[in-house]
Amino acid sequence: MFDILHRVGMKASVDQVYKALSTREGGAAWWTTNTTGDGKVGGVLKFMFSADGVEIGGFDMKVLELQPGKRVLWQVVDGPAEWIGTKVSFDLKQSGEHTIVLFKHQGWKEPVEFMHHCSTKWAIYLMSLKSLVESGKGMPNPNDPHISGDGPD
Amino acid sequence: MFDILHRVGMKASVDQVYKALSTREGGAAWWTTNTTGDGKVGGVLKFMFSADGVEIGGFDMKVLELQPGKRVLWQVVDGPAEWIGTKVSFDLKQSGEHTIVLFKHQGWKEPVEFMHHCSTKWAIYLMSLKSLVESGKGMPNPNDPHISGDGPD
Repeated sequence: MFDILHRVGMKASVDQVYKALSTREGGAAWWTTNTTGDGKVGGVLKFMFSADGVEIGGFDMKVLELQPGKRVLWQVVDGPAEWIGTKVSFDLKQSGEHTIVLFKHQGWKEPVEFMHHCSTKWAIYLMSLKSLVESGKGMPNPNDPHISGDGPD
Repeated sequence: MFDILHRVGMKASVDQVYKALSTREGGAAWWTTNTTGDGKVGGVLKFMFSADGVEIGGFDMKVLELQPGKRVLWQVVDGPAEWIGTKVSFDLKQSGEHTIVLFKHQGWKEPVEFMHHCSTKWAIYLMSLKSLVESGKGMPNPNDPHISGDGPD
């Protein structure tokens, strides 16, 4: 198994960051504006992405764990084949005035080219989360920086 | 062993991207302005970083492979303990008007918190490389976006 790892510090409380990670409204403000579904444990959050006004696919995340101010854990239940069954976690800790987010997208079967892409794209979205909690304005899809050139995102 | 993976497409020729990756001047324009040393195969490129005008550490990379327009491979010969012996590769391919960079920093012994940080930071620097070859202006240290909050970078 192969994992994507990231770490970003953001000048905000763990409660602010946790709220952005554990609610539909939060997801809509940092990951994709088209976020629907149920953010409670056992519920499914649906993140749909678009480019040039057309839906290009998304991810359905079952909420496995919610520890306020500490940890959010999702499992991918629908989306690209490579994502199904993988898990995405956000572990939070306070460090002075900052909240440190340790991110892990674990359980990739192979380190395919798409995994390389998703690794970079997660970094972009975590910077969007940082921007959201620090300034009130994230860069969720469809306003996310594009990194592919040969694809829609 | 654990690897950091990234993929970024940039609107530039493979030759432009290769030049930015294989020369001292290129490294100074996207990774850190304080780049010195010898970029030839067998030579060592020295990348030194600073914050608030103070040097905070760096990486010495032995150039193991140079395939013009295709591939650059370095091995870390000095730097943080976790980096020593690891390898950093950039594989290039043309896709329409874009060059796709497949990046790998391989051979981490453990997926430590510092590896999470470096994964995110590599994404930031690859976006700097993209900016350099697309617009002529990168964001090398000390002008790189900071991601830590609790550290200098």
